[in-house]
Amino acid sequence: MPVSEFDIIKQYFDRQHPQREGISLGIGDDAALIKSHAGQTLAISIDTLNEGIHFPVNTSAEDIAYKALVVNLSDMAAMGATPVWFTLALSLPEPSTNWLEAFANSLFEIADKYNVTLVGGDTTRGPLSITIQIAGQLNNEQAMLRSGAHVGDQIYVTGTLGDAALALALKNQDASNSNETTYLFSRLNRPIPRVEIGQAINSIASACIDISDGLFADLGHILKLSNVGAQVKLYQLPLSTQAQTLLLKHTELYDTVIKGGDDYELCFCIPKDKQAQLETLSSNFECNITHIGEITDSKELQCLDESGNLVSDFIQGFDHFVKQQ
Amino acid sequence: MPVSEFDIIKQYFDRQHPQREGISLGIGDDAALIKSHAGQTLAISIDTLNEGIHFPVNTSAEDIAYKALVVNLSDMAAMGATPVWFTLALSLPEPSTNWLEAFANSLFEIADKYNVTLVGGDTTRGPLSITIQIAGQLNNEQAMLRSGAHVGDQIYVTGTLGDAALALALKNQDASNSNETTYLFSRLNRPIPRVEIGQAINSIASACIDISDGLFADLGHILKLSNVGAQVKLYQLPLSTQAQTLLLKHTELYDTVIKGGDDYELCFCIPKDKQAQLETLSSNFECNITHIGEITDSKELQCLDESGNLVSDFIQGFDHFVKQQ
Repeated sequence: MPVSEFDIIKQYFDRQHPQREGISLGIGDDAALIKSHAGQTLAISIDTLNEGIHFPVNTSAEDIAYKALVVNLSDMAAMGATPVWFTLALSLPEPSTNWLEAFANSLFEIADKYNVTLVGGDTTRGPLSITIQIAGQLNNEQAMLRSGAHVGDQIYVTGTLGDAALALALKNQDASNSNETTYLFSRLNRPIPRVEIGQAINSIASACIDISDGLFADLGHILKLSNVGAQVKLYQLPLSTQAQTLLLKHTELYDTVIKGGDDYELCFCIPKDKQAQLETLSSNFECNITHIGEITDSKELQCLDESGNLVSDFIQGFDHFVKQQ
Repeated sequence: MPVSEFDIIKQYFDRQHPQREGISLGIGDDAALIKSHAGQTLAISIDTLNEGIHFPVNTSAEDIAYKALVVNLSDMAAMGATPVWFTLALSLPEPSTNWLEAFANSLFEIADKYNVTLVGGDTTRGPLSITIQIAGQLNNEQAMLRSGAHVGDQIYVTGTLGDAALALALKNQDASNSNETTYLFSRLNRPIPRVEIGQAINSIASACIDISDGLFADLGHILKLSNVGAQVKLYQLPLSTQAQTLLLKHTELYDTVIKGGDDYELCFCIPKDKQAQLETLSSNFECNITHIGEITDSKELQCLDESGNLVSDFIQGFDHFVKQQ
């Protein structure tokens, strides 16, 4: 069993060869060396996952590695950037061969899939914690910021909302072994970073964020930084059929759809005159996108029911919605 | 007291204005945006400090912040790079206003001193852990690698060795309140990153590493990656007067000088024909540099005493040395 940091790095993490163009030096020295192209703009993001906080104790090494990289890939998606390289800081209570092997295999599987290269890292002793910093490249220096939304822009989300939060909420309930919860747990543990969609909409979206803290919290960041408000049509929020089935039994959990994080879908704003362009683009998207509302000058985040009336009680609003499906 | 991540970031960490040229977007979005110069080469390094592993429980927030950034600055020094920007992943058991204030003040004090900009981060709940990823810029794309040493190169170190390890070793001893240990603890908690020296020697050094794991372990990395050996003159190893005083009383700790890490001095190799240039440069250095040995073709790390004899027992070798001072 390898015990030193150097053994661990060499055996498990120094395996992406040949290296991508521009990476003059990868793992193994005091720093990696990365050559920039002229005028290149890098998007830089860092995220930590701690055991017991961001994932339950005893989550598999594969799922941890997957999610640690994906939450960072999702940040790149939200900026419209192409992921290029990342660094890994891994704190482990005790180096275990099996755990490291499984972790590294999963990490490189997702890294290879998204063509992103591990260039360096730090492996050290401590409570289980994974920090990844990722760098992405932007075409034409253009990024989708949280601050770019304008009154009249149309609000969209990718995929479905609330699946991951429902999985967590139902973990200890009777329903925890149903087909529905199995699906929801796959959404919690294996969210899909919407990297391609982010790149595709970068030239037409006015603002974008990935939904890590829940639709309302994250859309709220766009509204605050853009100094605008929004009207969201509750009845349009996209739910998976599995979530719908379970919400009918667990009406007390309706608000996970707007408050639940961890789905890593994108929420983005499109100027009205670009909607046709979005429709064309979306035929190639890996998942559905759903039009959920509009940016307003109200400075508030308002919810509407099907009749266009303001809904003040989320639970009530969702009640109406879910039963209609 | 701020409780949310956004409050914490806004109140404590979003304070370096105006931002450095090239940083198009700093803290506050899904990613920071950084514009590269044409042909620029970035040196990238990441390091984690965990409570109870890399610093004792109850270390002050100021010292933790200082060291978390300095260990990364030291990696830049070892590559000969100019630090440019960094990201911070901070896990905290419980956000405390006083702790955060002290941590941030110390972090920005050292960041400002070395002209390096915090561009993004992640603040989250978990056992106390600080991960910083730093990026530095290289002039002429030249970096000092661990793999560049050649037979005949002369080996040097900056500053003095073993101070930090002696501080830790003597922490619970009678001597722990002496002037000497106060000095040694300042070396442990406030190591000086040799950034300027790293930049100055970059064009003449064949190899360089920062001493984080102890002289012999770190010089060993150079030897292994350069496929060479070395002879080190034990009697030349630079000790602080404080370390010398304490080592006379604690002869059992002699080997901390070669095995003790955490000093963050540089160990580097200079071709013989560049020694005169180094002498000239060194008059402007912030600390002494000491010639400690030579790269050989033996593939081993050998120690010599004053008579040029091989020393097989470190303690014995040091015994001779310290008493001679």
